Amino acid sequence: MKSRALALTVLLCLVSLVAFAAPKYVFVFIGDGMATPQIAAAEAYLGSLSDSFVDELSFTTFPVQALTTTYSNNAYITDSAAAATALACGYKTDSGVIAMDPGKMVEYKTIAEMAKEAGMKVGILSSVNLDHATPACYYAHNASRKNYYEINIAMANSDFDYFAGGEVRLSKTPEGQPTAEDVMRERGWTIVDTREALMALEPSDTTVYAYNHGFSFNALDYTIDQKTDDITLAEFTRKGIELLDNPNGFFMMVEAGKIDWACHANDAGASIHDTLAFSNAVQEAIDFMAQNPDDTLIIVTGDHECGGLTMGFAGTGYSSAFDVLGGQTVSYEWFNQYVLAPYKSETAAEELRFADLEDEIAEYFGLTELSDRERTLLEDAFAQSMLSREERASDEATYLLYGGYEPLTVTITHLLNQRAGLAWTSYSHTGIPVPTFAKGVGQDLFGGYYDNTDVFWKLVQVMELNAYLASY
Amino acid sequence: MKSRALALTVLLCLVSLVAFAAPKYVFVFIGDGMATPQIAAAEAYLGSLSDSFVDELSFTTFPVQALTTTYSNNAYITDSAAAATALACGYKTDSGVIAMDPGKMVEYKTIAEMAKEAGMKVGILSSVNLDHATPACYYAHNASRKNYYEINIAMANSDFDYFAGGEVRLSKTPEGQPTAEDVMRERGWTIVDTREALMALEPSDTTVYAYNHGFSFNALDYTIDQKTDDITLAEFTRKGIELLDNPNGFFMMVEAGKIDWACHANDAGASIHDTLAFSNAVQEAIDFMAQNPDDTLIIVTGDHECGGLTMGFAGTGYSSAFDVLGGQTVSYEWFNQYVLAPYKSETAAEELRFADLEDEIAEYFGLTELSDRERTLLEDAFAQSMLSREERASDEATYLLYGGYEPLTVTITHLLNQRAGLAWTSYSHTGIPVPTFAKGVGQDLFGGYYDNTDVFWKLVQVMELNAYLASY
Repeated sequence: MKSRALALTVLLCLVSLVAFAAPKYVFVFIGDGMATPQIAAAEAYLGSLSDSFVDELSFTTFPVQALTTTYSNNAYITDSAAAATALACGYKTDSGVIAMDPGKMVEYKTIAEMAKEAGMKVGILSSVNLDHATPACYYAHNASRKNYYEINIAMANSDFDYFAGGEVRLSKTPEGQPTAEDVMRERGWTIVDTREALMALEPSDTTVYAYNHGFSFNALDYTIDQKTDDITLAEFTRKGIELLDNPNGFFMMVEAGKIDWACHANDAGASIHDTLAFSNAVQEAIDFMAQNPDDTLIIVTGDHECGGLTMGFAGTGYSSAFDVLGGQTVSYEWFNQYVLAPYKSETAAEELRFADLEDEIAEYFGLTELSDRERTLLEDAFAQSMLSREERASDEATYLLYGGYEPLTVTITHLLNQRAGLAWTSYSHTGIPVPTFAKGVGQDLFGGYYDNTDVFWKLVQVMELNAYLASY
Repeated sequence: MKSRALALTVLLCLVSLVAFAAPKYVFVFIGDGMATPQIAAAEAYLGSLSDSFVDELSFTTFPVQALTTTYSNNAYITDSAAAATALACGYKTDSGVIAMDPGKMVEYKTIAEMAKEAGMKVGILSSVNLDHATPACYYAHNASRKNYYEINIAMANSDFDYFAGGEVRLSKTPEGQPTAEDVMRERGWTIVDTREALMALEPSDTTVYAYNHGFSFNALDYTIDQKTDDITLAEFTRKGIELLDNPNGFFMMVEAGKIDWACHANDAGASIHDTLAFSNAVQEAIDFMAQNPDDTLIIVTGDHECGGLTMGFAGTGYSSAFDVLGGQTVSYEWFNQYVLAPYKSETAAEELRFADLEDEIAEYFGLTELSDRERTLLEDAFAQSMLSREERASDEATYLLYGGYEPLTVTITHLLNQRAGLAWTSYSHTGIPVPTFAKGVGQDLFGGYYDNTDVFWKLVQVMELNAYLASY
């Protein structure tokens, strides 16, 4: 017994000696709004498809796990800007600030900028707009995440190698100013917006900006709504690996931003499908690691929880029925845009009736055989949805019910989620620590319980980037 | 840089070679109903006392962390019996079953029984009744957790060395049968039920049964309600270490069972104070480990989440105010028993008025300056509480509001918790994975993402108990 243990220890020592060089290929995957409940929901839904309670995601089996605190400099519940600043730069800042100090005077150097200085290629990917808070914190420095134009111009002026995901918000360009795309073209970037053009790119192409423009805010569409010509986050990741691979290595940040958007809206189905798409993107890195086992590190984390998702509901007690989520085939947003809005605009005010939409609710969410409670809640919500935003009730109880979302649709997802045995407590982020997963060279450094700022410092250590640290 | 890394690796190898013997002293601490949200709530409350966002518990800084799935053989959301069977015996069983297979034919051998066979002393501690499901799964085998008499008789017939915590349910003794205490006395056990008597015990004393009897179900009182003569879980742990320490080592399981009970009732204040008491109990093991660094292993885990607790609420958005929980000075149960019940029994039915209790609600929970929404909810709940249980509304919406608890009191804790920025979705357990923390000899085996059954198999491996495994 003891001799076997001794042999094992010696073997482990030899392995760790071989593997203790800095990783050449570093991936940081961030599930925006993804904490343990979002992961558990995706695993439970997967499980329901195969008649087991839980099926694992690509990254939940990583050998090293941690819990990571997420609070910002000025709030227990962070926003994505402060969280990404912590992950990218190693310092706490106020919510809303992009890679700067709380006083908005100091520009914090990011891990991506340091990697670039060290000679690595850099890729920044997101399923939401690439000028959104999380990706921005890796390439921009701004007092406010809302300064989209300044941020997307900073992106166009960056010296990184690959940006891919949701289109930047060109609509925020001030009149008479060049757009970010104008600047990129001026600088000779390759810009592609179809799968065909993306797939045709060669590693010899210079800086690449590749995007999808979805039906909502030009972010990637929710995975549950994507069509065959949409480029998935996994495809963007796979192509990024191909384009960035070079003898000096690369750093790649990949954000699944629409998990967060779905959770704000309390739509578990949309959140789960985007979490599965995120898992597929991580799988691309895992597959790459299989070819480069001694040179690769993959970190997967979340920036904060969103929605106060739980894996139980008072009305269902100890029962769960995650398979009912399979009845949902579109996101809340698709339903708003392609069912609710047309119905409302095409129907005379005096003819608006909840019964008109029951077939659509059944078709798109599988919500049938309504209980008295469910019907009452849906009819009340329908009545609110049929009013203009100005006419709707604005008391606290109404906010708790709908959170500023389309009342009928958020009630549909609430009730569907409750039938599955899931529930929500907020339309904002929440403050529980998020899990962090690590696999690859230097993985052991990422175990334990630490702050989101430590993710940066651990990366600096394992990537041996100390020489590139800025002093403030 | 590289040479320092090399030196560090060599050092780590030497350390792990020295430390790779089986631990002599093994602690398994189980927070019943304690998952990430319960830990986060306690840390955020602690933080509010020191003007920081988070202050660490004794065990959250342990070097190795994991996520552990908790589902039972027949349900995604487990009960404590199936969860403790998994942790204690390494097999899934149906909810409600104590250390037996789902068919209730096979008695699963427990890690405590194996440790005893291997010559270690064994201690079983709990803040709830020692014949409750979690402790029972370490010493008893029964088709149902509800067979309290059979279970506490199994305890009295066990060959373990130290049982401490909440009194067994003697009231469940069938007429004409000996009680568990009769059996213990017959077998020469030392029975103590005061701190003074406990502290006077010497290691030479034979098997010890030490208990508190609190005002509710004879479990330990909620920490928030404890008086100076109550024995704390930390004191039971410290004395256990003193009594069990011997050249052959010991195995000790310590359960904080009232975290779960507080969370069923959606009382964050009571849950937090019991989580802090649990942290104090773990600290006793940490202090012992400091004296025995090469021989000790401490595992801390939860058996499942309870209540669907989240660290955010729609009504407070991105704000939190955990300091308001400091206004609460008693548990929901103390308030029920010592304020609400006397008021109801001493007041004529036609004179029952919510206003009569406003001062007490302010005094015991710090809930003042009620908003319209809060007042309406409290007055509705008061009206329900003033009815007999049979008279109360029993529709689904009412269950969602009160969950079978005293309507006024659960509404008080809901509203107080919401003011702090916490919320609940259930009165039952929920299914998110729980964090597992490890520190000491063999700790590295406990990293990663695994099932609660794996906790047993990892302990068997690290404690080198393979020879004592049963075959089924």
